[in-house]
Amino acid sequence: MTRVAILGSGSWGTAFGKILTDAREDTLVTLWARRETVAAEINERHLNREYFPDVELSERMTATTDPAAAVRGASVVVVAVPSQSARALMERVAGALEPDAIVVSLMKGLERGTHLRMSQVLAESLGLSPERIAVVSGPNLAREIVDRQPTASVVAAANPLVAARIAELCTAPYFRPYTNTDVVGVEVGGVVKNIIAVAVGMCDGLGVGDNSKASIMTRGLAETMRLALALGGLGPTLAGLAGMGDLVATCSSRLSRNNTAGRLLAEGLTPDEVAERMSQVAEGVKSAAAVAELAAQYDVRMPITQAVVDVVEGRLAVNDMGARLMGRDLTSEGEL
Amino acid sequence: MTRVAILGSGSWGTAFGKILTDAREDTLVTLWARRETVAAEINERHLNREYFPDVELSERMTATTDPAAAVRGASVVVVAVPSQSARALMERVAGALEPDAIVVSLMKGLERGTHLRMSQVLAESLGLSPERIAVVSGPNLAREIVDRQPTASVVAAANPLVAARIAELCTAPYFRPYTNTDVVGVEVGGVVKNIIAVAVGMCDGLGVGDNSKASIMTRGLAETMRLALALGGLGPTLAGLAGMGDLVATCSSRLSRNNTAGRLLAEGLTPDEVAERMSQVAEGVKSAAAVAELAAQYDVRMPITQAVVDVVEGRLAVNDMGARLMGRDLTSEGEL
Repeated sequence: MTRVAILGSGSWGTAFGKILTDAREDTLVTLWARRETVAAEINERHLNREYFPDVELSERMTATTDPAAAVRGASVVVVAVPSQSARALMERVAGALEPDAIVVSLMKGLERGTHLRMSQVLAESLGLSPERIAVVSGPNLAREIVDRQPTASVVAAANPLVAARIAELCTAPYFRPYTNTDVVGVEVGGVVKNIIAVAVGMCDGLGVGDNSKASIMTRGLAETMRLALALGGLGPTLAGLAGMGDLVATCSSRLSRNNTAGRLLAEGLTPDEVAERMSQVAEGVKSAAAVAELAAQYDVRMPITQAVVDVVEGRLAVNDMGARLMGRDLTSEGEL
Repeated sequence: MTRVAILGSGSWGTAFGKILTDAREDTLVTLWARRETVAAEINERHLNREYFPDVELSERMTATTDPAAAVRGASVVVVAVPSQSARALMERVAGALEPDAIVVSLMKGLERGTHLRMSQVLAESLGLSPERIAVVSGPNLAREIVDRQPTASVVAAANPLVAARIAELCTAPYFRPYTNTDVVGVEVGGVVKNIIAVAVGMCDGLGVGDNSKASIMTRGLAETMRLALALGGLGPTLAGLAGMGDLVATCSSRLSRNNTAGRLLAEGLTPDEVAERMSQVAEGVKSAAAVAELAAQYDVRMPITQAVVDVVEGRLAVNDMGARLMGRDLTSEGEL
């Protein structure tokens, strides 16, 4: 039997657990849930009703509220918590980690202050070599995955054997992982697409049409690629499933938290009011400032990200964002 | 005054005429309409109700059913007819063309039999140097444009002065053209996106979700780029507004003819029944076989285009397309 810990019982953590138990009969998943009620519901009723009221989970998926207990004995530890809480959680579990465990990030954010990518936060806070870390990212709306709608994804790891091992564990009839060694490109794609999705949500809130939204996505991928290349990522990764694929899927989903946050901001709510209205702050809102700071460090132009930051921080009215992006950003067609 | 002829009174020809008359007070547009009723409605009521019942056209836009009369005296001739009828129409107007007129293609197709791009068909049938030809393409859903929703587009011409001249004529408050000299890349992007939109329409018809559709668009752009590069086009063009931008806008619009054709095919109608149901055959359906043949000539792998051809020609059931694309095409992540 392979024991896998999943830290985080949100929609993606739960959906990934379902993929793992559907993929292989010999995989046992222990999910860490912050709340006792959620853990009990998973253990007693095989349900996580807050996210998927109608989806039955495998009996091979159990839950605990003790993160160290989840990690103990697990050969693979999957981390799927909000990106700003990753470090504190890792510090709680570091002592329980098996000496040869692989750690997998499902997170899409940049740590505030340090500007570290999630794989870097994991390596630093767990004292792990990057060789033992993988990331999974792609056009993977969790709701569609638990409905077994077919999709593909990218498993990236500096060590190709680690990527292959994780891909083997999560190959299900409806989920096809492809391996890649470009961890930087995959993570940058995942971080920035959330910010672009906030911008597209703002367009939705302003009643802007598909032509403009397609321009924002196109220019958004261009600025994502500029940042990824500056950090050592590769162009084809961004042109692939973890770049364009994830961006288009996220921006197509009007139900995503990032899109909702953008729409509420466009409707005139302040960032605090948006946070209050939504149960969780959208990753794109939280990461935008850190990405803009990182881009400035590397002298990378990211006008859409900067516009989102300026709206969130109250320096730019959403109504003026359109004019700014259509006027300024789009002068650079052809420049990548 | 600048006199511009627009050959074709469909949605894009009419919308482009509106852009031209909104862009400059000193532009006069003569639209060629095949039907007398359409020409009369434009001349007498400044309306083209079949496409835009609620959009008032400029008094500087008039119409005629005589294509040679439209072209005579025009310094710019814009061609916006179904791609398979371009050559025959050009042969009717060649004698009336002013000796220094610029000819602009709004068409997105490949001529059957010859596999020529539309700018090549114009050059050949009019006996023109490629230096006098431009193409316009981008995320330009016509309905949004007549509603003055802001968008951008690409004007490509081998001669940069020609591109700049056309860009000058069509810069309106809601329409920003960017110039480019990569005619091949712009045209290939425009042709193949229609085919990918048919494939995405098939996904809609099958009830497939956003994850899979985003994968199809991503892999679709990858195969578009492979063909463009083989024909001498440039990567950044395909990553820009005339490539990814146009693809995403078209695939987002459930009202497009290509999407509708794909959905009807997925619902089990034969291609003939689809053609009967729709007033016009979708460009993506018409061009797919020619693109596949051209790709084969240049040894370019285009599995999504091939799947559309096979469905249209009755060799592949739509239900098997998904398995084929998810199974086979997606093995190539990372390969461009």
